Amino acid sequence: MEMAKIGALPDGGCCRLALTDEDKAGRDLFLDWARQAGCKISVDSMGNIFANRAGRDDSLAPVVTGSHLDTQPHGGKFDGVYGVLAGLEVIRSLNDHGIVTEAPIEVTVWTNEEGSRFAPSMVGSGVFGGKFGLEEALAIEDSEGNTIGSELKRIGYAGDAPCGSRAFAAFFEAHIEQGPILEAEGKTIGVVTGAQAQRWLDVTLLGQDSHAGTTPMPMRKDAVFGLARIVVAIEDLASEFAPDAVCTVGEVAVSPNSRNTVAGCVDFTIDIRHPEEAPLGEMHRRVHAILEEVSDQYELGLNARDVATVPKINFDPGCMEAVREAALELGLPTRDILSGAGHDAMYIGNVAPVSMIFVP
Amino acid sequence: MEMAKIGALPDGGCCRLALTDEDKAGRDLFLDWARQAGCKISVDSMGNIFANRAGRDDSLAPVVTGSHLDTQPHGGKFDGVYGVLAGLEVIRSLNDHGIVTEAPIEVTVWTNEEGSRFAPSMVGSGVFGGKFGLEEALAIEDSEGNTIGSELKRIGYAGDAPCGSRAFAAFFEAHIEQGPILEAEGKTIGVVTGAQAQRWLDVTLLGQDSHAGTTPMPMRKDAVFGLARIVVAIEDLASEFAPDAVCTVGEVAVSPNSRNTVAGCVDFTIDIRHPEEAPLGEMHRRVHAILEEVSDQYELGLNARDVATVPKINFDPGCMEAVREAALELGLPTRDILSGAGHDAMYIGNVAPVSMIFVP
Repeated sequence: MEMAKIGALPDGGCCRLALTDEDKAGRDLFLDWARQAGCKISVDSMGNIFANRAGRDDSLAPVVTGSHLDTQPHGGKFDGVYGVLAGLEVIRSLNDHGIVTEAPIEVTVWTNEEGSRFAPSMVGSGVFGGKFGLEEALAIEDSEGNTIGSELKRIGYAGDAPCGSRAFAAFFEAHIEQGPILEAEGKTIGVVTGAQAQRWLDVTLLGQDSHAGTTPMPMRKDAVFGLARIVVAIEDLASEFAPDAVCTVGEVAVSPNSRNTVAGCVDFTIDIRHPEEAPLGEMHRRVHAILEEVSDQYELGLNARDVATVPKINFDPGCMEAVREAALELGLPTRDILSGAGHDAMYIGNVAPVSMIFVP
Repeated sequence: MEMAKIGALPDGGCCRLALTDEDKAGRDLFLDWARQAGCKISVDSMGNIFANRAGRDDSLAPVVTGSHLDTQPHGGKFDGVYGVLAGLEVIRSLNDHGIVTEAPIEVTVWTNEEGSRFAPSMVGSGVFGGKFGLEEALAIEDSEGNTIGSELKRIGYAGDAPCGSRAFAAFFEAHIEQGPILEAEGKTIGVVTGAQAQRWLDVTLLGQDSHAGTTPMPMRKDAVFGLARIVVAIEDLASEFAPDAVCTVGEVAVSPNSRNTVAGCVDFTIDIRHPEEAPLGEMHRRVHAILEEVSDQYELGLNARDVATVPKINFDPGCMEAVREAALELGLPTRDILSGAGHDAMYIGNVAPVSMIFVP
């Protein structure tokens, strides 16, 4: 729990935003521990950290595990950190038992997984996995105009190793599930088979501000009424694609947001996810149709932008089988599970065999 | 248009918040004009201004008109100001034609009609009409802790006359309609018969923040879904009480307001109005029933507070008839109309015969 003290919040969570002084303190603490465990440290040009424990044959590509140390502004104690510390614990246990592995073992810390200070998320693993270019990633700015590149230099984590140059024999990311399924079913290990497909939309409905007392109902162009019909239709759509679909309207901004003014404008987000591409594609088409239909009905201007498209990701069957067998040996109940959220492992899957291990 | 230059906004409107330097400048300009027109000025302890033009018999109670000079932060050029300047124009016209009225004529400027700097609204006329106590009103604070009393002193408008001590023979407030009806029907004068009844509610729905990707739909407590069902039901309720009912959800705050987080909390307002008390009472009961039903269905905590109850107000039939006859003489097309919004005249109606004159 030493790590959880860095950026600790009064309610028990953590705020350790990427590349802040808190993130640096977390990284420094990890390096202390990794060096004490006998690891050799390497940092790449994206600030990704690799703590290497030598194997019998160091010409072999390492078997790698790890996750991230940064958090959301109101992050939990365990998200990300769990995967890093679990990897360190593997190395300590091997040390304690004097075991030498054939290939080296490595623990990673990926830079800026959360994306809450520097959008988008999973940038360190994204550059490593070829999703983003290095220069493009280093130039990403926070809301105050600081770049990832300048902040990496400031906290001393702009490393020498080229990002993406390391070969991995396999990558296993351990992570808390972030969902209620394992706990509800009493399973200790989730064998993660991949990640569901996902679409993000940003929507603006443009009506007309007018006086709440003096504008008769038929003369209104009320963006909040439009929003409400759309949200109801989206919830119904999720039911139609039950049990696998999830739909969320998490962000809403009403303007002018006054008690006695009919709202002339609403901006909101839509997040839709499904384990399979084909039904998600159908849901995505239906969402656009709902937006058109309701905005027509309420005479609202519509601006609907697709802002993210995450395809379905399938993890490596060999890696999944390795997780399943290890759990069986240890007598831990398992369950195959699909990741609902994004994780570094998804981008690493582009350049190495990958699976994840979920814990409740 | 001299008045509209004070606090002018780039988009053509005005920002002249109550008891700011801009409000003082507007008041000073009015006093200049009123003195030039030969009026005697009196200011009461609430900063309400009375510009008196002597009649043949000054022992008679004056016939009074006027409105307010303060505006919303993005107010229009004419709201309120129109009624004050229309009163001044009446006096100038009487002067131009050398007419002496039997009773004196007075033009009023009521303090803090808008309520946007100092809530609630219509405080100057409210104290005059006995709705609020003087001490209570003077103690009202803006968001920076300045009181109405201290700001009246600062701008030099804390007057000597006791507030509410003046007798009015009648009060006629001229005002822009703030609605589209007169313009749509090509009527020049709205004979205002009163003001509709009104209820304001503040509502909080409390669900559970959860991850948009990993929380199955049946395990969610999504406050935005609850909000949407409530807004749809409220719109349907307005249809049921058509054509007279108006219902508005103008203010919405979603928490944590994040694209990939199921919203655990929504705060919003409800404004319902109807020309008659009985149907509005029924609508008000139905709104509470909707809130209970939806929050039960979505397993959301509900906190619904009634924050304002404005009864139906009937203006004086004699005053209304006077407006109607005057318009007839001038050949102006009229229409009886109910006020959808609040106006100073409503509180003055407690202590004098009142009507209003709407213009498109």
